[in-house]
Order: sequence, then C-alpha cells, then structure tokens
Amino acid sequence: MPEDTNRSWTLASRPNGAPKLTDFELKESPIPTPGAGEILIATRYHSLDPYMRGRMNPPTPAAYTAPVPVGGVMESDSVGEVIASNSDLFNVGDIAMGKIGWQEYGVLDGRDARKIDPDAAPISTSVGILGMPGLTAYFGLFDVGNPIAGDTVVVSAASGAVGAVVGQLAKINGCRVIGVAGSDEKVSYVVDELGFDAGVNYKTENVAERFQALCPDGINVYWDNVGGPITDAAVDHLAIGGRAVICGQIALYNATSPPQGPRNIARMLLTRRARMEGFLVFQFSDRFQEGLDRLAMWIRDGSLKYREDVVDGIENSPTAFIGLLNGANFGKLVVKVS
Amino acid sequence: MPEDTNRSWTLASRPNGAPKLTDFELKESPIPTPGAGEILIATRYHSLDPYMRGRMNPPTPAAYTAPVPVGGVMESDSVGEVIASNSDLFNVGDIAMGKIGWQEYGVLDGRDARKIDPDAAPISTSVGILGMPGLTAYFGLFDVGNPIAGDTVVVSAASGAVGAVVGQLAKINGCRVIGVAGSDEKVSYVVDELGFDAGVNYKTENVAERFQALCPDGINVYWDNVGGPITDAAVDHLAIGGRAVICGQIALYNATSPPQGPRNIARMLLTRRARMEGFLVFQFSDRFQEGLDRLAMWIRDGSLKYREDVVDGIENSPTAFIGLLNGANFGKLVVKVS
Repeated sequence: MPEDTNRSWTLASRPNGAPKLTDFELKESPIPTPGAGEILIATRYHSLDPYMRGRMNPPTPAAYTAPVPVGGVMESDSVGEVIASNSDLFNVGDIAMGKIGWQEYGVLDGRDARKIDPDAAPISTSVGILGMPGLTAYFGLFDVGNPIAGDTVVVSAASGAVGAVVGQLAKINGCRVIGVAGSDEKVSYVVDELGFDAGVNYKTENVAERFQALCPDGINVYWDNVGGPITDAAVDHLAIGGRAVICGQIALYNATSPPQGPRNIARMLLTRRARMEGFLVFQFSDRFQEGLDRLAMWIRDGSLKYREDVVDGIENSPTAFIGLLNGANFGKLVVKVS
Repeated sequence: MPEDTNRSWTLASRPNGAPKLTDFELKESPIPTPGAGEILIATRYHSLDPYMRGRMNPPTPAAYTAPVPVGGVMESDSVGEVIASNSDLFNVGDIAMGKIGWQEYGVLDGRDARKIDPDAAPISTSVGILGMPGLTAYFGLFDVGNPIAGDTVVVSAASGAVGAVVGQLAKINGCRVIGVAGSDEKVSYVVDELGFDAGVNYKTENVAERFQALCPDGINVYWDNVGGPITDAAVDHLAIGGRAVICGQIALYNATSPPQGPRNIARMLLTRRARMEGFLVFQFSDRFQEGLDRLAMWIRDGSLKYREDVVDGIENSPTAFIGLLNGANFGKLVVKVS
C-alpha cells in the first residue's frame, strides 16, 4: 500500500449478538492533515477492551456515550509517535496517546492527547495498566469498593486487563484475594505470579461451592467484570455490609434478547445490608494523575505486575476483539500497529 | 375465657408459599409472671409488618435474624399497659412497647421496653410512624437514599406504613415524589392527602411507560418495598448517579421457587453509575431518638400525616397478615388486642 495511506477499521454493520468479521470493514483513506492546534500520530499500539462492544450497538437512552456510527472508525485508546504537530504541546517525535481508534494514523487536538515518557515504561502500558484499565481498577476498587485490610475480595475476569490490577491492588491493601478466571493456566497465573490467595476456574469448577469454601465469612468486595452466573454466585455469598462493584458485564454483551436470571440481587443486598454500585472511570478524571502516579510507583517497586497479550498487525484487530469477548486473550490485549 | 389466660398466635407450620390460616395456631396459656427487672404488659395493639413473613421461613445463612421456631409465638412490636412491674424503669399503668409478639400479654425486661407517652400521640403510633416503620423510612431515605432537593423520588407500596412516610419525608426534603400503589383509592390518597406529585396504579397502568412519562430525567431515588416487575421498571429508569434503596421485597416473599427476572440491575447500575443498597433499620439504632424526635416534630407541625388500618381483635391477626402480603391493607396495619 502506498505510504500516504491510512488504514482504519470501521463499523460495517451493527452486530446481532456476537460480532462477526463481516461487521468490520478495513477502509483506506489518505493520511489526515492536522489543523491548527492539532497533531498527527502514527499509531504504534491500539487497545482492545470489552467496552467497545457497547459502542457497536445502536444508540439507546441507557448508553453512557454515543455509539460508533455505522461507517465510522472503531473507537479505542491508541498510542504512537507524533509525526506532525501544530500544537505547542507536542513536538515531532514525541509519544502521544489518545482516542485515535483502530487505525494507523490519527489526528487529535493537542489538548486531547497525553504525552507519554517512553523511558518510564513501555509505551503500550499507556493504554493498559498506566491507562484506562489501570485507572478503572484503581478508582473502582478504592473509591467504590472501599476495601479495608482483612477483607475478602473476589475478582472476576481476574487475569484480564482490569481484574489483574484490581486483585494486586487489593493485596497491596492487605486484603485476601480470590480470582475467577476461565482456564487453569489463568488461575495459576493470578495465584502463582500475581500473588492472589486462591483462584477458581469457572469453566471446570462449581463456582458457588468454591465461594462457599474459600469465603466462609462471605465476600466483602466483589469485583464484577462479567455479570451472569458468576455474579449470581458472588452476590449469594456477600458478607454483611458487602460491596459489589460493577465494572463490566461481558457475559451479557452479546445477548440477543434480554438475559434472564434469578432475582437474587435486591434480596441479598437487603438481607446482607450490602451495596451494588456501578461506575465509569471518567467520574474520577480530575484525579487521574493521582492514580497514574501510584500505579507507576507500585510497578517500579515490583508490587504490581502486568501481562500484555500483543497481537501483531492491525489486520488482526477484529479477530482479536471477537476473541476478547470470548476470553481468548490472556492479559491486556493490544494490537501492535507498526 | 378465664381472666388469667393469655392467648398467643403461634407458628403452627412453616408456609410453603403464601401463608394459610392453618399455618397459625391460637394457643392459650397462663398469663406469665414477670421476674426480676421484668414487666408484664397487657397488649393494646400489635403490629403486622411484611418482614414477619421472613420470620416464618426455615433458618438460612442469608437470614438476618433467627426465625420464629415452629410452636413459638409470632414476633411483633406491640404496645400496651404495664400491669405488673419488677423494673425500676416502669410503674404499673405506664404504657410500654417492645417485642411482645402476637399475644395478649407479654413479659419483657424493663431495659428492652420503651416507655410511651400516651399524651404525645396515639399509642398505636409507637409501632408505626413513631416506631420501626417510621424509623425505617427516615434512616433509609436520608442515610441510604441521600435525596437532595429537586430529586425525583419514586416510592413503591406508597400508601403503606413505610412508603407513605418515605414519600412525605422526600417532599419535606424538597423532592418530586411519585408513588406506586395497587388501587386508584391508594393513588388518590398519596397524591391528594399526602401531597405526592403523582401516582401510578401498578395494577391498571403500564408502570414502565408511566415512569418514562413522569420521570423524563430519570429516577434519582427509587424506594423499593416490593421487588419484581415494578423494581425492574424503576431500575430501567434510574438517573445517572441514581440510588435504589432496598427496604423490602414483598412481591417475592411467598415465592416457592427462586424467582427469575431480567438481568437488568447490574447493567443499569453500570451505565447509570448508580447504586443499589439494602439496609436494616437496626443499623441506625444509636440514632433512633433523632429519628423519633424529627418524625414527631413533623407530625406536630402537620407536614407528616399517617393512616392506620386497625383490625379489631387478636382472633383476626392471621387473616389480616395474609391480606397484608396481598396489599389488602390501606395504611399501617395494626391489630387492636383489647
């Protein structure tokens, strides 16, 4: 392809249920030109996160942000090199991250991009543990979950981009941490490498029985990335005064009709005097620097580890995203673009 | 019956689904004798409240208190006259309330009874608006629901012992209040007599459509006395940052198998950055006097009204209780014992 071509993954059609490869279309267009105050970024990595499934849906009153329009570029945080700048904030050669999307080149207002120090950490972490997923874990756990030392914290999707951080932050906070994941390899990873106290393989074990055995005094904080039967079991085991933090509902994202399940949530919240609360990381945007500073500190001192699942080549983005919704990734999923 | 006989409603059998009259047995026994520090109370009124249905179930780990044993006296707050006292805290002739149960006479440790001033308010209010139901409304609304002036507050079971207080307190607090009730008469009562802004008859109207029309900016506080489809609709209409306060789940209490419903709660809490929280009034026991003082103040100044549904004669307690679970009462249900 010619050097002045930008390849972009666009939304070809809104999925009915699980996204298919045909719901995405790779379009070519000229590399865009930055206007006044803008910068042009050559993407090195773009992020893939479960929330993007929601952006593929039609607009609804309940959606917290506008969806990607059909024909529009798929949304993501991305990080890359500034190759042209009309902004006082960036020089050519700087590394910048921002909402560039699934594409090779993007233009952002300099004020909407964040400058990344490539010597501080691998730049891919700016869309992972030192980006939205890490901040989601930090603020959701500490400001919504309110764990205290000695609490039992159960984390679903425990080896994923957010769950792995949540569990490690809870350990740093003096909690007992149980991780739920979808393979023995992932369970071993969170226990043996990340230091969780125990793990549950939800595909091979009876989750309710395991919660009963592992959390005899109940679950003080349940971190919900998934929804569905794992959440049912966790809610049934909440401790008095427990908190269920709703971060994601990946088990429900591909549903084609309203999912049904037991009416246990309100009843358990009542008898356990417990709380279930949803949040979006953007609620805490005025404190992002605090979160980034602490996450970076814990990475430096070795108490916070991360694992990336790097897919090579933007042509593979849709396949990798479809896999993410099925738990095929192992660690924070990013696409290496160039 | 002889004057020294105490009649007590006992739990004959644990109900399977809705309680039947045969699940209760009226037993006669000698009037008990108070021991050291104890008082003997001749019951004037005993309370009937939905929570008592839970006390009829077998013990479970999720229950927040021990159930009534089979053969045991049905539990209730009751109020009556002290007719014998071995306590420094009470004289014969005082009015006392406490956990006497569904019976004509009861013995309590003087420290477990509350002295009631019969000149301040009708003594039946000590088991109603100036007792557990009023305190439930006060602490649940203000400390869990956290309404602010201008909020839209939706109250289920709006004409009941708790709901009617919640709605009026929300009005005092400067909120817009929508009441949900099960008859046009009840809806008229909360709107025309209690000053709610609007009402919904859930038996004849499409609740979701009415919420949409009445709460175009969403529900800031939903007071849940009921669970089930009304709660589904309210959760679907939560505003950003909304709070669903779980006080009761009366629609589910008689279920014989685990009730099923849409998995909308966690999803809506996530997209709305909202919270659902259960509580028990006993969490606030160190502040009961604050609540009673304020409720009494608002009753005195006319901003808080109440309606009692008085059933005459302890022989009618089970029938009245079964009706309560079906919404047959209109106002705070109490049984006049003598």
